Amino acid sequence: MREHVTSARERALTVGLVPTMGALHEGHGALMRRARDENGFVVATIFVNPTQFDRPDDFQKYPRNLETDLAFCERLGVGAVFAPDAKEMYPGDLHQKKPLASVDVAGVSSRLEGEFRPGHFRGVATVVAKLFNIIPADRAYFGEKDAQQLAVIQKMAADLNFPVTVVPVPTVREPDGLAMSSRNQRLTTEQRRVAPLLYQALCEAERLIQNGASSAAEIKQVAMAEMSRNPGFRIQYLEAVDPATFEPLVQITGAVRLVAAVWLGEVRLIDNILVNRP
Amino acid sequence: MREHVTSARERALTVGLVPTMGALHEGHGALMRRARDENGFVVATIFVNPTQFDRPDDFQKYPRNLETDLAFCERLGVGAVFAPDAKEMYPGDLHQKKPLASVDVAGVSSRLEGEFRPGHFRGVATVVAKLFNIIPADRAYFGEKDAQQLAVIQKMAADLNFPVTVVPVPTVREPDGLAMSSRNQRLTTEQRRVAPLLYQALCEAERLIQNGASSAAEIKQVAMAEMSRNPGFRIQYLEAVDPATFEPLVQITGAVRLVAAVWLGEVRLIDNILVNRP
Repeated sequence: MREHVTSARERALTVGLVPTMGALHEGHGALMRRARDENGFVVATIFVNPTQFDRPDDFQKYPRNLETDLAFCERLGVGAVFAPDAKEMYPGDLHQKKPLASVDVAGVSSRLEGEFRPGHFRGVATVVAKLFNIIPADRAYFGEKDAQQLAVIQKMAADLNFPVTVVPVPTVREPDGLAMSSRNQRLTTEQRRVAPLLYQALCEAERLIQNGASSAAEIKQVAMAEMSRNPGFRIQYLEAVDPATFEPLVQITGAVRLVAAVWLGEVRLIDNILVNRP
Repeated sequence: MREHVTSARERALTVGLVPTMGALHEGHGALMRRARDENGFVVATIFVNPTQFDRPDDFQKYPRNLETDLAFCERLGVGAVFAPDAKEMYPGDLHQKKPLASVDVAGVSSRLEGEFRPGHFRGVATVVAKLFNIIPADRAYFGEKDAQQLAVIQKMAADLNFPVTVVPVPTVREPDGLAMSSRNQRLTTEQRRVAPLLYQALCEAERLIQNGASSAAEIKQVAMAEMSRNPGFRIQYLEAVDPATFEPLVQITGAVRLVAAVWLGEVRLIDNILVNRP
């Protein structure tokens, strides 16, 4: 990978990095297109990182299809793909349970996703730090769909002075509003039909804020009512949070991120939107 | 700093990094000479890192003399010195007590120095990760005097794939055997006279091992007896440990590092030697 990057730099090309866990969809496509627009050479990584999964079954069931993914990358003009196995990324240590160096992004990591998925963000921050070191890129692209992950990575890059610009890319949605996610593949037809209510509830809350509402409790109540139209949802959280720290807000005065996580059958879905109160 | 490094690379020079906390002495001189021998361009950093001090008085009393240090660096052929203040390294966060991203090197960080200086190695690993990112060097030089710190940094660089070779440099000693340390400046004349007994005790233990002793308990007992010849020492630890993990050994069969920490008045001294049992 370093030779690919060095060779690109020798040709005076900037390098864009798109880290993924594979099972590529149009959300990843948007990251790759943006990276290609802004850089002369694009590297994608495909690695289902075991250390960021809090549940073994989620790791096992995570969709994998390397051949299809490689064709997808080629179609999108990706110049090189790094698809290591777990032994290459964590030599000897994972199975021997030896302790590993890790990166902890205090504060933003501890709430919401961090609370419901213990160890998740430590796994994410650590593997992304490794990828930043393996592929020394000028820019790295992450989707706003995983907004809290994006905030964790932005804080890590800033606090640890990684010489890379973290570029957020807007969420790509299906025509009915459902945020694209590799986990959507695991929904039944009936679950898939009602899944967009998650996004609709966030939009309902947004309308309330645009119309002047400022009480987070009131806004949450309306969004909860909207979500309860789908009795299949088991809501884990629904919050109005500070976009940088992900601390829940009581009064909404400016920018706010509305974030939610729900279970639908055996699949956990997350979504969010950024709202600027007028 | 990045421009200095980029410019060196454009001239096809490799870059050697020597991180220090200043108060430079011949121990640092050995790091700089080695870095100059092995690289075309040498960068030294001088930063008394507040986050690695477990005691505020140690931080306040740590010797500082930037003018003398800069002259020292120039004499030794250092090409650039990075001497940031705490605000540049931790913008806004230290005084506002905002949480920062940090690097934790599990296992080796938790014992000995890690136990007696809570948070010390997290501070060290984090600031060195920052320096590795600020100054993308080919090689970074660390003294074996701080052997456990060296092991922490080697494990961090390996586990997080930092693209830098960590080069250990042997401890430089005064003619009477005392390991050079910036903190030696703070010893009284009488304390300075008896301080070398720390090293002598380690050498006594080494002789025992070379003569075939393999019981760590027996070896420690002899070294303790030697140290007790200086009634001013308050011993914190004296251990025979695995050179990579710093786990205390019971039976010595191959390579072992003898490590010790003592208080002498208000000054804490550490020393160590590596022994290969025949």
